[in-house]
Amino acid sequence: MTVLYKADPVRGAVWAERFAALAPELPFRIWPDIGDADAIRYLVAWQPGDLAATLPNLEVMFSVGAGVDQLDLARIPAHLPVVRMIEPGIVDGMVEYMTEAVLAIHRDLFDYALQQRTRTWRAMPLRPAVSRRIGVLGLGMLGTAVLERLRLFCFDCAGWSRSTREIEGVACFAGEASFDAFLARTDVLVCLLPLTDATRGMLDKRVFAKLPAGASLVHVGRGPQLVSADLLDALERGHIHSAVLDVTDPEPLPADHPLWTQPRVRITPHIASATRPETAVDALLDNLRRHRAGERMIGEIDRARCY
Amino acid sequence: MTVLYKADPVRGAVWAERFAALAPELPFRIWPDIGDADAIRYLVAWQPGDLAATLPNLEVMFSVGAGVDQLDLARIPAHLPVVRMIEPGIVDGMVEYMTEAVLAIHRDLFDYALQQRTRTWRAMPLRPAVSRRIGVLGLGMLGTAVLERLRLFCFDCAGWSRSTREIEGVACFAGEASFDAFLARTDVLVCLLPLTDATRGMLDKRVFAKLPAGASLVHVGRGPQLVSADLLDALERGHIHSAVLDVTDPEPLPADHPLWTQPRVRITPHIASATRPETAVDALLDNLRRHRAGERMIGEIDRARCY
Repeated sequence: MTVLYKADPVRGAVWAERFAALAPELPFRIWPDIGDADAIRYLVAWQPGDLAATLPNLEVMFSVGAGVDQLDLARIPAHLPVVRMIEPGIVDGMVEYMTEAVLAIHRDLFDYALQQRTRTWRAMPLRPAVSRRIGVLGLGMLGTAVLERLRLFCFDCAGWSRSTREIEGVACFAGEASFDAFLARTDVLVCLLPLTDATRGMLDKRVFAKLPAGASLVHVGRGPQLVSADLLDALERGHIHSAVLDVTDPEPLPADHPLWTQPRVRITPHIASATRPETAVDALLDNLRRHRAGERMIGEIDRARCY
Repeated sequence: MTVLYKADPVRGAVWAERFAALAPELPFRIWPDIGDADAIRYLVAWQPGDLAATLPNLEVMFSVGAGVDQLDLARIPAHLPVVRMIEPGIVDGMVEYMTEAVLAIHRDLFDYALQQRTRTWRAMPLRPAVSRRIGVLGLGMLGTAVLERLRLFCFDCAGWSRSTREIEGVACFAGEASFDAFLARTDVLVCLLPLTDATRGMLDKRVFAKLPAGASLVHVGRGPQLVSADLLDALERGHIHSAVLDVTDPEPLPADHPLWTQPRVRITPHIASATRPETAVDALLDNLRRHRAGERMIGEIDRARCY
């Protein structure tokens, strides 16, 4: 019944401590110190490579992060359930980052930063939050938590997802047919979508053109979802006013990439949120209990949809 | 029963519209078009000068803003109640600005902005909000609303005020005797105090020295409360890590002032919050009703304390 961890070893040490405290009966090993391969039932990894295929008694493949796009699903035996990480630490981090980003755009802080560079003291009109239309792409646990926090500021909140969702106080759009209507009413577009074949390259000039002039983008999905040449063009024409990018393609963003120096673009190095080892172990142990009881695990993905 | 308004005329036009809609029986005039001086009972002003003393039947002096430090109380007849503006628009704006500022500090966005200038992609450890100690100076309506919002992010919240207050989930410190203990436990110091003789020059090297090394300042009180030479010195030594300043002394901040160019200082031109005419008229009408009923008005100041 061993749990094998293959990801950042510094964070792994925190996992090991927490495991020892909460589930001393479960052996926890950090790759490459795998011990008896036959004993390993659970793999927790960022990029497992071919490891999942080489462990004869593996029962579940857990991603150490909220996404599974870094996994090569073809190299993970088809009978294994694949589970992404859903735990309160990731949610808290994302709610913090998104609230800050939306408020910074709402309160014109990119423009005030430019004014500071020229030592200009000039107030801009203060617009009430109720007239600022936020649109979140992706209404899973993260998107829902972000919208629930933003609602408290009285923003005009909407969300879009492939399948129909309901969130109190949020105008929920679903499916391709409603996508244009969603974009047309969105001043601040937030991308929280998983990376799939359907979302790769999705944030492009067609999407930007459907946003109202002066809209902004907050991108915390995955780098390859954004066509950066299209964003640069929309920024230069002023159609997109500003962008907060926590993910890029590639990562790290090369030093000569023009996004680094755009005046109203903020780049952060994929730090919007991260699995918090302390709470992640709790979530993992809860899933192990579910698995043993024959229940569906939280975050178990549909391998056909890849999320 | 005329209301006379003496402040920004563009905003005054919104006040006039709102008055006409909600209280058409009350004549509303915008200075200098005062009409019959004898008819004026209520003055709503930013800087009334000697106007209050020249209106023979004036009953109340309303400040158009949340503070009254811009009023020269000696030039307002002693029998007149002086009322500062307390209305939901001011509160909403302040909660937005403060939430953004605290989250920006919490999530290391000043450091990430510096990294962006050098095109550096390097993640810093993500610290949980529960370990970030926020300390708010001033626990009136604004301070309380800000703390209630910050609590939702699980920050470790405290507040300090001259007299004892109680706010759920917030460690409340009161009076001079507890001031040092409050500072010693504060990573992000927020100043929301009114400007009085007691608070002028209060944010000085003695206060900064009592904060833990690496603390940050968010100053949205009044410019003259801050000794900027002491802040610059504490920033240069790294004892203060970063500062968000919405108020300065003087305002506008002169172009050659060294605060403009400090790497971890954000200057905004006194825009954290503003009276929202739409909701301010509601608040004013409610106070007029209270005044006629002989009740104490909301925001009526103690002229001895000046707030």
